[in-house]
Amino acid sequence: MTVRLPNSKNPRVVIIGAGFGGMELAKKLRNSPFQVILLDKNNYHNFQPLLYQVATGGLEPDSIAYPIRKVFRGVKNVSFRMAEVQHIDAADKCLHTNIGKISYDYLVIASGSKTNYFNFESISDQFMPLKSVPDALNLRSFILQNFEEAISSVDSDDREELINIAIVGAGPTGVELAGALGEMKKYIFPKDYPELDLSRMRILLFEAADRVLGVMSEEASKKAEEYVRQFEVEIYLNTVVSEYADSILTTKDGQTFRTDTIIWTAGVQGNQPKGLDPKSLAKGNRILVNSFNQVSGYADIFAIGDIGAMISEATPKGHPMVAPVAMQQADLLAKNLVLLEAKKPLKEFVYKDKGSMATIGRNRAVVDLPNFKFQGFFAWWVWMFVHIISLIGFRNKLATLWGWAYNYLTYDRAMRLIIRPYKKQEFIKMEEEGNPN
Amino acid sequence: MTVRLPNSKNPRVVIIGAGFGGMELAKKLRNSPFQVILLDKNNYHNFQPLLYQVATGGLEPDSIAYPIRKVFRGVKNVSFRMAEVQHIDAADKCLHTNIGKISYDYLVIASGSKTNYFNFESISDQFMPLKSVPDALNLRSFILQNFEEAISSVDSDDREELINIAIVGAGPTGVELAGALGEMKKYIFPKDYPELDLSRMRILLFEAADRVLGVMSEEASKKAEEYVRQFEVEIYLNTVVSEYADSILTTKDGQTFRTDTIIWTAGVQGNQPKGLDPKSLAKGNRILVNSFNQVSGYADIFAIGDIGAMISEATPKGHPMVAPVAMQQADLLAKNLVLLEAKKPLKEFVYKDKGSMATIGRNRAVVDLPNFKFQGFFAWWVWMFVHIISLIGFRNKLATLWGWAYNYLTYDRAMRLIIRPYKKQEFIKMEEEGNPN
Repeated sequence: MTVRLPNSKNPRVVIIGAGFGGMELAKKLRNSPFQVILLDKNNYHNFQPLLYQVATGGLEPDSIAYPIRKVFRGVKNVSFRMAEVQHIDAADKCLHTNIGKISYDYLVIASGSKTNYFNFESISDQFMPLKSVPDALNLRSFILQNFEEAISSVDSDDREELINIAIVGAGPTGVELAGALGEMKKYIFPKDYPELDLSRMRILLFEAADRVLGVMSEEASKKAEEYVRQFEVEIYLNTVVSEYADSILTTKDGQTFRTDTIIWTAGVQGNQPKGLDPKSLAKGNRILVNSFNQVSGYADIFAIGDIGAMISEATPKGHPMVAPVAMQQADLLAKNLVLLEAKKPLKEFVYKDKGSMATIGRNRAVVDLPNFKFQGFFAWWVWMFVHIISLIGFRNKLATLWGWAYNYLTYDRAMRLIIRPYKKQEFIKMEEEGNPN
Repeated sequence: MTVRLPNSKNPRVVIIGAGFGGMELAKKLRNSPFQVILLDKNNYHNFQPLLYQVATGGLEPDSIAYPIRKVFRGVKNVSFRMAEVQHIDAADKCLHTNIGKISYDYLVIASGSKTNYFNFESISDQFMPLKSVPDALNLRSFILQNFEEAISSVDSDDREELINIAIVGAGPTGVELAGALGEMKKYIFPKDYPELDLSRMRILLFEAADRVLGVMSEEASKKAEEYVRQFEVEIYLNTVVSEYADSILTTKDGQTFRTDTIIWTAGVQGNQPKGLDPKSLAKGNRILVNSFNQVSGYADIFAIGDIGAMISEATPKGHPMVAPVAMQQADLLAKNLVLLEAKKPLKEFVYKDKGSMATIGRNRAVVDLPNFKFQGFFAWWVWMFVHIISLIGFRNKLATLWGWAYNYLTYDRAMRLIIRPYKKQEFIKMEEEGNPN
């Protein structure tokens, strides 16, 4: 079955994924001499850096998700299709998807990354990931459900298990989440659950490396650690999680922690589509590309963003898996596709690192610019400004600003709504098997 | 297992349900000489009259849902528990719930109503109800998913089946929904889906009676019908739906309509808890109450709102199942509980009908006041004003205002996000049975 698409005489570029890379490329190819087919399993682009705010009830999905069709309204050469790619058939120059077959002249893989549970893959359904809007809503529901359960429980061990929260991985997501949860512990939970002894609630942050925010400067790490501790978050550095069973998390050095909620932000891996030559694949489920983002061994397939591993002497592990890399690669690829059609030589990708930043609770952030590092209140303003202007669309900018202004002024997180209760897979299985619990 | 609750020497009032009635009663009993335990299966109160706006992407849940705990912050004698009632044990004066046993001195059933599918109960999973926030989000997802599927489909019958929408029941919900969908057909879908022939999209509104908005005046009905038709909605009055199979809806008079989406707003029935004496029950799954809202046969159990049927000569079918009845009964019951404790005579309930209203798309509404009926642009302003002030909390009022201002000025409905794709039960069953479709 073939997918119905508009007729076009122009060469067809099919883009897999409407994340930062895919969206940027499709935008840059607006009104170009290509027919662009943009695919994503969702009908929206989501602004991943703010997912943790949806998880902690500070923003609703409509602030950080944007309907893809709205971006390409009135653009004749770009068509969106909501589809999941099953496999690539490079010999036949087509994709097999859940909605049918789509042929291509050029294929761009911008499928991003997914959570990497490393050796915990087999029990990953006991952890909470934070890579998508449903993940964020599940986490929001789960934390609140546990509090609702704890308040009615007569067993104090059960209560602790339900209200303690562990975060594994102190990268930007882990640290920002720790700050937000710390704020909730300080300002929200005591008012909502006066019958619970919140002094017994522990927020635990585990990191295998010797500092938080390993991707940033030592200065930023140090300050971020200080900020996180101000919210009574316990940080365990050089600590590797080794086991999780019966609600007890055990570390390699033998410490144990009782908790029902483990948020896994310890790593990502490429979200690799099937069908490519194994020789084209790189470590961490990524795809080997040359300096034009051309997939190794294919002239008409490209990979940009997190999924692409541009291995060189300067970047032996490829580029960092962050939005600016994806967007810069998309910008260049839009130009290179035109050059390729004109049979002209392509331009090589050079990453321009503009810096990185993270925020930890109200009034606190750390910013690393190439030549200037700063932290604190001003950094927090810069963080907010950069995130607001990076959001797609005037409406999302305004909705996010309004959400933040409200949260800041009221010390509140208004969206403490359990719209869809979340159940861990193990519980669903137990129920199906008729377990009396 | 007993639910952990705060100690109190005061008589305990347990309220089942945090809808309009239950919330109002708990609010009125703040700082009273009762211990109040408020139960609901959700941790939020939702403003049902605006659910259709969540369904059509005009508002996010946080605009119309409000965390129950926030309402009772700092109130020492009111405790909320998220629980589903399994059955009432009146002999033992306690409730059995999914979180354990809760005893009561006075029990107030304010569990509201649920969708009544009448003789379609067995295939109700093929219809979309609109009684809860998840219902609204499911409907939003389902309509958008169908459009996404239609745009890729090569079969024109399939496309029509996917984009046509039938609404069964032209009460306030049906009519308001028809207006909102009509707006989307006019302003949103043509821009989002330029590849679909939207002139072939049919919005069908079926009503068994001879007019829409049967609960309102003839004048309002007539004008509402005119408004709905302005949005190219087809209205079928005196038309009873008789069958639905293979995506074909058949009416009693033999007409057939091809559609995948049937929104069922044709009726409600009491959301009756188990355990009461069958003699206490009334038609439509409601509970028989006397003029003090006391359940027939019980001195310490009351029922207010939709679930209570106060049958008298003046109200042979009980009062209308609307929010003002529930709230007025709650107000009186708060006083009567105090009188009851003081062993004083109770006051009888007298319903004060303040009128009713409905809106149909932008700039159009119908309003029936006891002595004054009007329609049109001014009615629309009145409708908005009344709904805004009726929302709980400053934040919800502001969020809704902002949503409406945005929708009005941009002719847009921004939340066209399929966050959780919805599948009809039949499809889930088919997939589990390994059906190749």
